[in-house]
Amino acid sequence: MDYRKPSFSFFSFFTIILCSNIPQISAVEYPINVWPKPTTFFWPNPQAILLAGNFTISAPEHRYLTPAVDRYLRQVLMEHHLPLVNPPLNLKSAPPLTALVITVADVNSPLTHGVNESYSLAVPSSGENAILTAQTVWGAMRGLETFSQLVYSSPSSVACGLYISDVPLFMHRGIMLDTSRNYYGVKDLLRLVKAMSMNKLNVFHWHITDSHSFPVVLPSEPELARKGAYGESMKYTAADVRNVVEFGMEYGVRVVPEIDMPAHTGSWAEAYPEIVTCANMFWWPAESDWPNRLAAEPGTGQLNPLHPKTYQVVKNVVHDVATMFPDQLYHAGADEVVPNCWKVDPSIQTFLSKNGTLSQILEIFVNTTLPYITSLNRTVVYWEDVLLDAEIKVSPSLLPPENVILQTWNNGPNNTKKIVDSGYRVIVSSSDFYYLDCGHGDFVGNNSKYNQPPGTPQGDGDSWCGPFKTWQTIYNYDITYGLNEAESKLVLGGEVALWSEQADSTVMDPRIWPRASAMAEALWSGNRDETGKSRYAEATDRLNEWRYRMVTRGIYAEPIQPLWCVKNPGMCNTVH
Amino acid sequence: MDYRKPSFSFFSFFTIILCSNIPQISAVEYPINVWPKPTTFFWPNPQAILLAGNFTISAPEHRYLTPAVDRYLRQVLMEHHLPLVNPPLNLKSAPPLTALVITVADVNSPLTHGVNESYSLAVPSSGENAILTAQTVWGAMRGLETFSQLVYSSPSSVACGLYISDVPLFMHRGIMLDTSRNYYGVKDLLRLVKAMSMNKLNVFHWHITDSHSFPVVLPSEPELARKGAYGESMKYTAADVRNVVEFGMEYGVRVVPEIDMPAHTGSWAEAYPEIVTCANMFWWPAESDWPNRLAAEPGTGQLNPLHPKTYQVVKNVVHDVATMFPDQLYHAGADEVVPNCWKVDPSIQTFLSKNGTLSQILEIFVNTTLPYITSLNRTVVYWEDVLLDAEIKVSPSLLPPENVILQTWNNGPNNTKKIVDSGYRVIVSSSDFYYLDCGHGDFVGNNSKYNQPPGTPQGDGDSWCGPFKTWQTIYNYDITYGLNEAESKLVLGGEVALWSEQADSTVMDPRIWPRASAMAEALWSGNRDETGKSRYAEATDRLNEWRYRMVTRGIYAEPIQPLWCVKNPGMCNTVH
Repeated sequence: MDYRKPSFSFFSFFTIILCSNIPQISAVEYPINVWPKPTTFFWPNPQAILLAGNFTISAPEHRYLTPAVDRYLRQVLMEHHLPLVNPPLNLKSAPPLTALVITVADVNSPLTHGVNESYSLAVPSSGENAILTAQTVWGAMRGLETFSQLVYSSPSSVACGLYISDVPLFMHRGIMLDTSRNYYGVKDLLRLVKAMSMNKLNVFHWHITDSHSFPVVLPSEPELARKGAYGESMKYTAADVRNVVEFGMEYGVRVVPEIDMPAHTGSWAEAYPEIVTCANMFWWPAESDWPNRLAAEPGTGQLNPLHPKTYQVVKNVVHDVATMFPDQLYHAGADEVVPNCWKVDPSIQTFLSKNGTLSQILEIFVNTTLPYITSLNRTVVYWEDVLLDAEIKVSPSLLPPENVILQTWNNGPNNTKKIVDSGYRVIVSSSDFYYLDCGHGDFVGNNSKYNQPPGTPQGDGDSWCGPFKTWQTIYNYDITYGLNEAESKLVLGGEVALWSEQADSTVMDPRIWPRASAMAEALWSGNRDETGKSRYAEATDRLNEWRYRMVTRGIYAEPIQPLWCVKNPGMCNTVH
Repeated sequence: MDYRKPSFSFFSFFTIILCSNIPQISAVEYPINVWPKPTTFFWPNPQAILLAGNFTISAPEHRYLTPAVDRYLRQVLMEHHLPLVNPPLNLKSAPPLTALVITVADVNSPLTHGVNESYSLAVPSSGENAILTAQTVWGAMRGLETFSQLVYSSPSSVACGLYISDVPLFMHRGIMLDTSRNYYGVKDLLRLVKAMSMNKLNVFHWHITDSHSFPVVLPSEPELARKGAYGESMKYTAADVRNVVEFGMEYGVRVVPEIDMPAHTGSWAEAYPEIVTCANMFWWPAESDWPNRLAAEPGTGQLNPLHPKTYQVVKNVVHDVATMFPDQLYHAGADEVVPNCWKVDPSIQTFLSKNGTLSQILEIFVNTTLPYITSLNRTVVYWEDVLLDAEIKVSPSLLPPENVILQTWNNGPNNTKKIVDSGYRVIVSSSDFYYLDCGHGDFVGNNSKYNQPPGTPQGDGDSWCGPFKTWQTIYNYDITYGLNEAESKLVLGGEVALWSEQADSTVMDPRIWPRASAMAEALWSGNRDETGKSRYAEATDRLNEWRYRMVTRGIYAEPIQPLWCVKNPGMCNTVH
């Protein structure tokens, strides 16, 4: 079935809550909102009722749904959220709501790429049971989150007389976090997953390793972390990974691991110097041109595809990672292979001297590793470079579209189009819109750009992907821009990305939130209203409120406006 | 005496630690560093000794120094800081250090503008007592901070065989925080003061009120906060203010209050609508030009200088604030008086129709309020606008330089020069260098800038003072740029400023630190090495280390580089 279509009967509910033909009010005017805004929110006569002190949630027993139900039950009874702007709601003098009853059509659907996340939720105004219906337990979790956001105040009250039918526009809605350049503790990762679930995001793309550190402890290759991690306290053990993956399941968030290779592997050289070219070299030798640097940024090292031992290590790594991370998607990196890092290696020099090319060397690598990964029943995600790099790329014939998904980050919608036009499914992380690290200047040291006489134009501050991507920039980006309907179907979704040159746990929350919330809504129900008009202006007040609720839930999302703007809706706009 | 000159004998110490003519090693190579770098750091033979388990600090009894000594004693015994890069130091087999002995020449000097903060610190390598000598208890606190940064590891060790003679270049080294646009809890303010003291900053400029909220509860005018604060939980009571001021004294940080007026006073209108013009109006009416807006940003309202009641309220406010904040400096705002906000008022229209000018109206306000503030033995700080605004400004004859200091924020060094050339002392907060809020885009809602087709150049991201000011930008700024020696003497120092449209307690630490640390060093000992060369490249590794130490001390300073860069000094530079 089409995962975008809810499977329940929409119309049976109407007879329950509707007395007459009340016109649907505009979503803008709702006194209580859910983030991301549901696809359909039918609330003809906004009212609220009390939640009974003995309120319960009933649901089918399930390894992951049951703890989620317990969690949400505690939350709705104890959160007592006080909206910043008092919702002008009449508390209906009806019996309090005593139960939310969850039914799931197929309790056995695993949490996979493309799983059905649709649900419907009805909260009658009569005090009769609220009903949450979903095809899968994962859809039920989305509905539980929605229900929790309808509950507010003390004593707990809940919006009633409403019907929600909800289904995401895009199946892949994720966040990429880089834990190699700087380390994040397990508790940070769990908090990230928790906040993702609040925003109905479903994929944590964990960019675990890079040239800077190799924090994950792999059973078959323990030396990689022993020598490549930043330190004993900055590792992820097998138990840590299990913890993150299981926690994700309870929150409906898949964890997709990325072990970036063959570039971005300097940290591997601590354990296996023989398989890494140009490791531990200064990244940009004096007087050499930009194309002749040894890495995209400080931290050099690329796996040598011509060394047999490379595959012995890679195979162990892939095997362990696929065992630790059950998800169907496996991210194998393949971004930013830099020519000179390979060219400095004697074995590669020999290959090139016999009329070999760097692209052939990458093809050898891909052709040796990709089949192994797919043999483990994985779909492989690569960064777009493997297909689109100007200099070092592989023939599409080596990248079967049924096994390969490409993640785009350059050149905005143009590369998205190139990828889908080549027949590949795509995940959109355009750095012009979705990179959360941009706009904080250059992290590279000794940059004379910052030592110019006063009056020198400061430009974009020397952040390669500056300026800072505001929540509005993210919200307004249409990831299928310029694509026809057939092309659009290959766009699986998107991921905001936090590269960690200038981030670690001290700034994780405010760098990510509420900007990731902006993407979450755009990918869930879109960035336009019923009339097709951009709804970012209307979204501002809702996002302000949602941001404050996230903060009270322990997520340090940054403020987007003075509190005054929240309390005076519309008064902080450019146009009245 | 000149506060920049230490008063102790430099040379008597040399005979203690020097056996022969060892050349002074470059500061760059020191294995343990102090931030901000001291003026003179003489450490010919870097070694360390253990801190004795019964280590003590002796100092003259003093209301504020005594708790500071207790605090530092606990800290050096229990911090056990582990440097990111192990200091290559021999632990000398000498008796452990058992005491730091503090002598203060004048224990009665109060913490005032221009107080002597110099100190000298000697830590012998023999195990003999360490000696801290200062002119004032405030200088002793600076020396204690320095000593604490020389202690590391577990068991606690301390750098020894060194002599430090230290004195700040500028007497005014501050941070401005806006608590009106968004609220910060008292515990956030205390943490800010604590972190300032770690960085030897000495002025917390508290921009308490603005158009958005009036959080401070004033005994004579309780209605202002009762109606103008964001809420019951978002007020500063008299006890809160006492707490912050007293805490500041124990940390050697003065608290300078700012009640901005006559503009930026919309929040006053909640209690006294009759004294505020244009309150609660939409800030930029449709189809009007930028010069015709009603406020610099959303949140309108200016005190009406022609209404007698204005002065009744202002006098009460000034009296209460001067009572609650003992500091000699009183910041009276006076920035961004917007013509149209006054022009919409009938009484002002009448005045203007009789050939009066807006500048005359401001002059009436200044001439009525300034003498009252100075009558309370205060030196008044105004934003530069009062003198330099293009349209609404007052005659210098109303601003006696002996009573008035101007704070510059526009036009980089040009306005600094204009101010000192007019004979005023100046505090530098140039928005091109010292504004910490820049570079995060526009907070104003419904900004179509963010809804352009992909490919539209993003420019500086529509942040009015973008790009983001990196720590290097801040570090490299010379606040006396273009001034001769006489002019430079009028530059009291500088303040980084955090305006809070897009900040509150969730992001306070990382927005401020370590960028404020960059200014702290530039204003304490400068941004150049002994040879006059910019030292920002060398400062990178030191700031990385200092940032990590701040984090372990509970200050969530943001990372400036991958940890890899710290562990591989020099490898992350642009030039090797």
